[in-house]
Amino acid sequence: MTTKHIGLFGLGCVGYGLYQLLQSTASRDLSIRRIVVSDRRKPRLVPSELLSFQPGDILENPDIDIVVEAIDDAEAAWQIVRTALLRGKPVITANKKMVAQHLGELIALQKQTGVPVLYEAAVCGAIPIVRTIDQYFSHEPIQQLSGIFNGTSNYILSKIFNDRLEYPLALRQAQQLGFAETDPTADVGGFDPKYKLIILALHAHGIVLSPADVFNSGIDRLTAADIRYARDKGWKIRLSPELIRTEEGVAAFVLPRFVHPSEALFGIENERNAVSVNTAFSGEQFFAGKGAGAFPTATAVLADLRAIAAGLGYSYERFKNPANILPDDRVLIDIYLRYKDFNQVKHLGFERISEGLIEGEFQYVTGTVTLSRLKKYAHILQNEGATIVGTGKVVISNGQPGTRIPKSHEKETCSTLSQN
Amino acid sequence: MTTKHIGLFGLGCVGYGLYQLLQSTASRDLSIRRIVVSDRRKPRLVPSELLSFQPGDILENPDIDIVVEAIDDAEAAWQIVRTALLRGKPVITANKKMVAQHLGELIALQKQTGVPVLYEAAVCGAIPIVRTIDQYFSHEPIQQLSGIFNGTSNYILSKIFNDRLEYPLALRQAQQLGFAETDPTADVGGFDPKYKLIILALHAHGIVLSPADVFNSGIDRLTAADIRYARDKGWKIRLSPELIRTEEGVAAFVLPRFVHPSEALFGIENERNAVSVNTAFSGEQFFAGKGAGAFPTATAVLADLRAIAAGLGYSYERFKNPANILPDDRVLIDIYLRYKDFNQVKHLGFERISEGLIEGEFQYVTGTVTLSRLKKYAHILQNEGATIVGTGKVVISNGQPGTRIPKSHEKETCSTLSQN
Repeated sequence: MTTKHIGLFGLGCVGYGLYQLLQSTASRDLSIRRIVVSDRRKPRLVPSELLSFQPGDILENPDIDIVVEAIDDAEAAWQIVRTALLRGKPVITANKKMVAQHLGELIALQKQTGVPVLYEAAVCGAIPIVRTIDQYFSHEPIQQLSGIFNGTSNYILSKIFNDRLEYPLALRQAQQLGFAETDPTADVGGFDPKYKLIILALHAHGIVLSPADVFNSGIDRLTAADIRYARDKGWKIRLSPELIRTEEGVAAFVLPRFVHPSEALFGIENERNAVSVNTAFSGEQFFAGKGAGAFPTATAVLADLRAIAAGLGYSYERFKNPANILPDDRVLIDIYLRYKDFNQVKHLGFERISEGLIEGEFQYVTGTVTLSRLKKYAHILQNEGATIVGTGKVVISNGQPGTRIPKSHEKETCSTLSQN
Repeated sequence: MTTKHIGLFGLGCVGYGLYQLLQSTASRDLSIRRIVVSDRRKPRLVPSELLSFQPGDILENPDIDIVVEAIDDAEAAWQIVRTALLRGKPVITANKKMVAQHLGELIALQKQTGVPVLYEAAVCGAIPIVRTIDQYFSHEPIQQLSGIFNGTSNYILSKIFNDRLEYPLALRQAQQLGFAETDPTADVGGFDPKYKLIILALHAHGIVLSPADVFNSGIDRLTAADIRYARDKGWKIRLSPELIRTEEGVAAFVLPRFVHPSEALFGIENERNAVSVNTAFSGEQFFAGKGAGAFPTATAVLADLRAIAAGLGYSYERFKNPANILPDDRVLIDIYLRYKDFNQVKHLGFERISEGLIEGEFQYVTGTVTLSRLKKYAHILQNEGATIVGTGKVVISNGQPGTRIPKSHEKETCSTLSQN
């Protein structure tokens, strides 16, 4: 048994979690040889002989076999990953933003150097979803993929629905517990789950989506009135990234949506994550587990370390034959819009309105809008005090105005809701 | 790209499912070269040039790279697997009974020949649980593992609880739909989930359990009175294999148990399977998906074919350092016993009785019994008309009579129930 020497960048939650995990599992075949940190004044709970402030102590060190990148800054992380691969060192990273932003370059660099990058820890913590989609379901068409990819916003939603806290208080509590950053936008605004969705879209459909092109809306605009609307119907709200595939292509977006008690996501509370995968031959597969925290994330890093030690990388099987990306105006999403002014309803250009209510200050409609309209107007309307929540139904139109594709091609994320 | 040639034994549900799956996924790198079947009179929906009745046409054929074993008979399957490995051909099998009965020999043969056997399809169909425990959680202590491993009995329980069918009618319906065999004992008696539990115990704890030593009780003795008892409390019953680990060792058994609406297993209906894994560092991981059926099982076989083609086998990491097996008299299980005669209560030698009721014909007690007493008397009592259902709590005693290990070592499979 030869020992693999690890160079670790960053000693925050994930980095220190990995250090502890390697200590407690007595993994003698994997040893941290060097830890590069940036803050010189911070006290560190590791032997000081391991510490360094020079990236070169890892990147230019011939004794380091594998690089683990666990820092926050996406651009600095990318420079580390890039340099490590060019120096022939396999990399494990937990940085979802970096991976999502550099997906195409990451594949090209792996091909060029023949050196693998693994990033299981970047998507839903301890849930082994990247490798499962990349390897286990590598040849099975994936018709739909969704879930709860962000522990922070799910924690806040749990507090809102179970403990009846209002959004600002639930957010503050999440911040005090260390679940939410001082600037929580990446989590509550739906950016973090979008990065994860983009990573899964590569492995599920072979496509490289740009973060700027994928629509995301978060939970930060939900008001007491919206919560009451959901609660009165016995529903909850979950921040749900969606990846939908028909024969013609793929649609992707992140939007909060109502969930019904009969859905598996209804029971996923607090910082737990979940992934639901609908495949052509195996039907629905459901995975749930801790999506954040030092040990769950470090567990994923450790599993990747063992894969690298065994010489494994991702197959990127579907990248050889990527799917089309559907035009936004063919993606029809059923939403609830709480509005301040009827002009807001007009802006969204509803294809069809199902119901509406005006009750004093509380005014809403439900109906179908295109993803292109949502992209163009959702943030403007929400800045003006409106709220948009998906009702769980998404249909891909055949591109002819006023017509729909046959029923069998409809992808419903929540058939129960849509029938109500 | 070189094409791997497959020799397939058996063209039943799994074998024909694999044939169709390879056709529909246009997997040109994997090709079925030969199919050996036993029944000469049965019409077959594959090109007849593929068919043979001679095992040697696969086992002695130098053109066959990989053997897929998909026949029913466990002993015949074992002979095929054994011969194939000795001939240097990797094997994929879906036969849980064969794998569980020959676990020790399978490991020894793989070591001796250096040729891998994979059996993801033998455990919970399309759920990638064997490889996840073997590889992903290979170094993480697994404190508890349970779930729904048998689609047939879960289908019957769903019909009983949701459609209010009585057991015999629900069984007949499952048989008519092809979910249950004419002799349903393997499924409804808890043997099939026991084989799967034994396979997972090897990968989770490095231990080789003998089917004869692991206690199993099924759902075939449940009466209308037991169902009413569960339903009145808002519970359901699930057939639940349990693998519990403390610092001192492992306990394993299969017993139906009550489940509470707050538990994830409550929502797993019909032929779906689920696995719940509690790990020391990552917390609870939950997997659910189709556990039976041609395509879900064939999907698992196909994933194993790709793993073999990539040169992968199981790590059997924990087999290097196996756990102890706890003595049965240290495993304390909380049960519900519906009895006919108070002597039946005495036989089980309850350590503690929590509650009891006598209401005409319907008499029951709940309390704590040892696994050794259950092993000795459960089947005798159930043959006399009693029913035993777990209430969800299992405690490992420290071996001193009358004392319990500290609270922190208690493993509760269902803390909500046990507090009721």
